[in-house]
Amino acid sequence: MAGPIRIAVIGLGKIAHDQHLPAIAANPAFQLAATASTHGEGVGGLPRFATLDEMLASGVAVDAVALCTPPQVRYQLAAQAIAAGKHVFLEKPPGATLGEVAILDAQRQAAGVTLFASWHSRYAAGVGPARDWLAEREIRSASIVWREDVRVWHPGQAWIWEPGGLGVFDPGINALSIATYILPHPFFVERSVLSIPANRAAPIAADLSFRDVAGAAIRMDLDWRQTGPQSWDISVDTDRGTLRLEKGGTVLTLPGEAPRIAEDREYPELYARFAALIDAGTSDVDIAPMRLVADAFLCGDRRIVEAFSEP
Amino acid sequence: MAGPIRIAVIGLGKIAHDQHLPAIAANPAFQLAATASTHGEGVGGLPRFATLDEMLASGVAVDAVALCTPPQVRYQLAAQAIAAGKHVFLEKPPGATLGEVAILDAQRQAAGVTLFASWHSRYAAGVGPARDWLAEREIRSASIVWREDVRVWHPGQAWIWEPGGLGVFDPGINALSIATYILPHPFFVERSVLSIPANRAAPIAADLSFRDVAGAAIRMDLDWRQTGPQSWDISVDTDRGTLRLEKGGTVLTLPGEAPRIAEDREYPELYARFAALIDAGTSDVDIAPMRLVADAFLCGDRRIVEAFSEP
Repeated sequence: MAGPIRIAVIGLGKIAHDQHLPAIAANPAFQLAATASTHGEGVGGLPRFATLDEMLASGVAVDAVALCTPPQVRYQLAAQAIAAGKHVFLEKPPGATLGEVAILDAQRQAAGVTLFASWHSRYAAGVGPARDWLAEREIRSASIVWREDVRVWHPGQAWIWEPGGLGVFDPGINALSIATYILPHPFFVERSVLSIPANRAAPIAADLSFRDVAGAAIRMDLDWRQTGPQSWDISVDTDRGTLRLEKGGTVLTLPGEAPRIAEDREYPELYARFAALIDAGTSDVDIAPMRLVADAFLCGDRRIVEAFSEP
Repeated sequence: MAGPIRIAVIGLGKIAHDQHLPAIAANPAFQLAATASTHGEGVGGLPRFATLDEMLASGVAVDAVALCTPPQVRYQLAAQAIAAGKHVFLEKPPGATLGEVAILDAQRQAAGVTLFASWHSRYAAGVGPARDWLAEREIRSASIVWREDVRVWHPGQAWIWEPGGLGVFDPGINALSIATYILPHPFFVERSVLSIPANRAAPIAADLSFRDVAGAAIRMDLDWRQTGPQSWDISVDTDRGTLRLEKGGTVLTLPGEAPRIAEDREYPELYARFAALIDAGTSDVDIAPMRLVADAFLCGDRRIVEAFSEP
């Protein structure tokens, strides 16, 4: 493709402002061409629209769109964009349901555009080296502990608690996107206990047991009620000692080594990947993390817990 | 393969006695070689075992197994059987989770055996002709009404109400196996309302809205509290009139025609298909019906309803 990829950002919420817009601005492969937001916002003097519909109808020149809207409305936007011949970057999770994602994957094949179902945590600094190290090890067990304060990280995000929102699996799916990437064998849900606040539709905590095909047990402890120190940690016991991946994949500690700490480059790396996929004419749609979440809901044992309210 | 396929039936519950054993007995491509049942039952003078493990250890000559156990334990049995080089017939649903089925599908490829994820309702007499007729029509809308009395059809089946059991989706997945087969476009869950008895983990009723990729609305009404007349009906409005498929797919009525009624041949057809797959060295693992159920759980709006108890 000659010249930069002209990209539009759809949905100007927290994640767009915090991550997408800066990553696009810093990558010369992209040129921000337009935005769409139902709140009437925009970016600088660029064309701004209320909806993707209006943007497509306007004839503004756009090669690709980044969808940063809540997952409940992602499918219609993605299907529209693919039908209009645009490359599509999907924030995680790639849809509200697995069926939608399967349909989008078929549609992008027919349309010949790139679809990128992004999992930003896979681009945290420690994740690639962790995957390489584990590839040659025998896994004995693994533990995933993701405990954070929802009031700090998702203030006022009502959609996250509604049917189709993932509740604590919104951060939890990040952990699963790392675990499915670094562990050498596929694993499946053996037991799922979901804690649902009495006044909400989605879980505020979850206790999951997985098993990999070689027999290793993997435990996962998700909790959105954590005040004080926050945890986004994975540890893996192997025949050669214990690997620790902390702070959401950014700090890797291998047995007998000092922690490796590196700068956060998740969204810059995601956009580098998106540009490379477009350049190569290929797509990346891995549903494994989302399938594990759907399975946790499908076979989940639901316990009603204390109502959740924000101050 | 020279001679009949030597098959073992694992799990001698209601479905094995009502359907599998008679279908196997009536098909000369198969020879029943053994059974396994934790209740100590058996069939005639044939080798009987408590578990698949014991059967495999015994050295009894078996080419294939039919797994008729509850879905919660199907994965371990299927993985064991595939690892032992046996062809596997899975009752519906093919597992407790989508992740399990994806793993089994990969394992059967590696082992070079046949895996058949069976959907018996697809072999009801009216289903094939309905699919053929709809292939050339424009679909305007469709309606699925599956209302039956759980006390009549699933007496005392406690597992069906437990986490991992599908509740009213146990029959409902039959409707979805038909709908995904006869409708010409893929469809996805738009809205899911699940009614959960106060004392159970699984839904007793569900109200679902799907949409196909061409925009047609599909409604689904599942209810296990139906006394009196029972319904297992699908109707499809098209540009050429309304198709009606009643009694679980056995009675097909095309516009302006009299109802077509034919003998129930579901399980005989399933075993004919299993023999053909083994003969051709291929597999049939379609997860679309189960993916829709997982999606209905994932984005479901849960309403607590009256407790369910059996007399």
